[in-house]
Amino acid sequence: MSRIPRIVILGAGYGGIVTAIGLQKELNYNEADVTLVNKHDYHFITTHLHMPAAGTDNPENARIEISKLIDEFKIDFVKSTVVQIRPYDKKIILEDSTLSYDYLVIGLGGEPETFGIPGLKEYALNIRSINSVRLIREHIEYQFARFKQEPHRTDFLTFVVGGAGFTGIEFVGELADRIPELCREFDVDPALVHIYNVEAAPTALPGFDADLVEYAMQVLAKKGVTFKIATAIKEVTVDGVILSDGETIRSSTVVWTGGIRGNRMVEEAGFDTKRGRIVVDSTLRTKDFENVYVVGDCSIVLNEEGKPYPPTAQIATQQGEIAAYNLVAAIRNTPMKDFKFINRGIIASLGKGEAIGVVGTKKLKGFIAAMLKKVVEIRYLYKIGGIPLVIKKGRL
Amino acid sequence: MSRIPRIVILGAGYGGIVTAIGLQKELNYNEADVTLVNKHDYHFITTHLHMPAAGTDNPENARIEISKLIDEFKIDFVKSTVVQIRPYDKKIILEDSTLSYDYLVIGLGGEPETFGIPGLKEYALNIRSINSVRLIREHIEYQFARFKQEPHRTDFLTFVVGGAGFTGIEFVGELADRIPELCREFDVDPALVHIYNVEAAPTALPGFDADLVEYAMQVLAKKGVTFKIATAIKEVTVDGVILSDGETIRSSTVVWTGGIRGNRMVEEAGFDTKRGRIVVDSTLRTKDFENVYVVGDCSIVLNEEGKPYPPTAQIATQQGEIAAYNLVAAIRNTPMKDFKFINRGIIASLGKGEAIGVVGTKKLKGFIAAMLKKVVEIRYLYKIGGIPLVIKKGRL
Repeated sequence: MSRIPRIVILGAGYGGIVTAIGLQKELNYNEADVTLVNKHDYHFITTHLHMPAAGTDNPENARIEISKLIDEFKIDFVKSTVVQIRPYDKKIILEDSTLSYDYLVIGLGGEPETFGIPGLKEYALNIRSINSVRLIREHIEYQFARFKQEPHRTDFLTFVVGGAGFTGIEFVGELADRIPELCREFDVDPALVHIYNVEAAPTALPGFDADLVEYAMQVLAKKGVTFKIATAIKEVTVDGVILSDGETIRSSTVVWTGGIRGNRMVEEAGFDTKRGRIVVDSTLRTKDFENVYVVGDCSIVLNEEGKPYPPTAQIATQQGEIAAYNLVAAIRNTPMKDFKFINRGIIASLGKGEAIGVVGTKKLKGFIAAMLKKVVEIRYLYKIGGIPLVIKKGRL
Repeated sequence: MSRIPRIVILGAGYGGIVTAIGLQKELNYNEADVTLVNKHDYHFITTHLHMPAAGTDNPENARIEISKLIDEFKIDFVKSTVVQIRPYDKKIILEDSTLSYDYLVIGLGGEPETFGIPGLKEYALNIRSINSVRLIREHIEYQFARFKQEPHRTDFLTFVVGGAGFTGIEFVGELADRIPELCREFDVDPALVHIYNVEAAPTALPGFDADLVEYAMQVLAKKGVTFKIATAIKEVTVDGVILSDGETIRSSTVVWTGGIRGNRMVEEAGFDTKRGRIVVDSTLRTKDFENVYVVGDCSIVLNEEGKPYPPTAQIATQQGEIAAYNLVAAIRNTPMKDFKFINRGIIASLGKGEAIGVVGTKKLKGFIAAMLKKVVEIRYLYKIGGIPLVIKKGRL
């Protein structure tokens, strides 16, 4: 170990950026060298991506330059892609260089879980980054333009969203809001446009309060969304999707929101993983390497019933705070804190002015829930960037 | 012939709309029934299409609702597609009905001339209508979004424009202006983007003043356009273009501006045609049917040297005026006028603030030419729609 311990944080998603900001607040200059590595020079707000994906908001409102969030005197930022993690050597191989560490924080995020469905990887789009949602937005607009040149191709106006979980529901809500605008822009009859939301589970939003799910489905059905619940996508082809009930939907746009698994890189590094996610102890460290912390979608934290918490922005953010605290404790040799997830509630937006949510034991729906969603987003901005960031991006 | 003669105008392009407006001004209510047939419920300004195609202007600024231009008490408007012209029966077959006429005006416009180049029809885009330019704009944006997901695919950032005539030159000028905006929007390094303008003739803008052509090429080269002059496109494939000099350019976007031929429908109708254009007499009537007038790209008018004038907005507009005059003369049995093309000059825009032009014997370039281009467009708006239209669309 060098005189000053070296901390490397991989990934500037929710977990990584909150860890970095926590370290920057707490550590003195001479206590540690901190390096943050990220593929892009911006942090993005995953919970907001359904809007730029549908085209109802500008992607710029879903990202923040990392240089606005970290203090370059305290943290070095390296814009690069991680190629390999070598926990035994305490080294990180980047695509263009190598980093050594004493302490590592892995916050590399997840990958879409395809459940082996044929064609999903090749033909479906994913809501997972600024680049991927710009692609979805442009893809959708392009289908409208293509339809005007080939008016028999109604499959250009059919949109299939796989998965009616959180992301799927929020995305179809936005898409349904966007369709009338696109129809006006491209002179298309709205009656020709179809949005299908396909979910294999017996209900939309599995795990959510049944009354609120019912309400959400009514709101979205009224906006023009057709639900196919308890129906699996058997295959995605260049022409559309084949469903488990035998139906084929011809569509040139399939967006897959059916799940997240961990990161292949952490599997390859030799950590103890379940579906690509690393099992961590109560201090968020891996079982085999006490100098390696894991936050966000790459980690698995079990609840009191022994089941993993679903990967969300909320848990990643809370993990980032604890990871920063425990890293400082490790360096100063003071006691660590155990991570305990505090459920602050959950809200799903259903497009403009509509949402559903559960906060504590309270059920919320409609405009109040939509407002609360905004408050949650603004609180996050305040947490990471203070008042200036709230003012700049707060119209989220 | 019915008591009141029935005039049918096919197409609301420059020639057709100016004919319609001319008749509406001159004819009394009881002199004729006039019907205007057009595929869309709007007229569009073809000379402006290079801008919305590149995305430097909104397509709305290149079109005008027909209901704003014609007086419904004087002219019936039918939104439909012409399927067949039957000059012997004096009937027009529309996709959903049939019209009889005593006098016919054909202003159906041209079709892209592909010169039999393999793959052009399948893989190249054309600048010819509101729908086609919306497709080009969306196609270009989509390539930037795709590139961000597949960064090895530099062919997504390579744009090939076939033809360095008027439309080709004006389009590459706009595209070169648009690229820096797109690079900012999608986080793309501008050095990765390439625009090629390929022309088979020994010079760009064949027939134009050589000094001005030189100036135009310098302006466009500085903006990043690579010219391939005296080089033919041998084939267009799904991967790009193969040139006559053996070079292959890998590109996912080929825009073809290489020429216009007449309309297959007028060939099938049995008129005397050359490359789909009908040879008309000095009164703009066909040689075989004295009740059929032809205006715009469907017609051929020979100059004093016996060569056909190139099809332009300027000639179509002037033809529309004469066609209207001669139709009124035919109905009133008064003398007709001979059509004589008056060359009011020609200006080619080269993107923002740059243009070249020849007016009379005067050569123009730079900002002055660009301003004059705007003046010409505003004069046209004034001619067809008066002051209100100039105010509404005049920011062209």
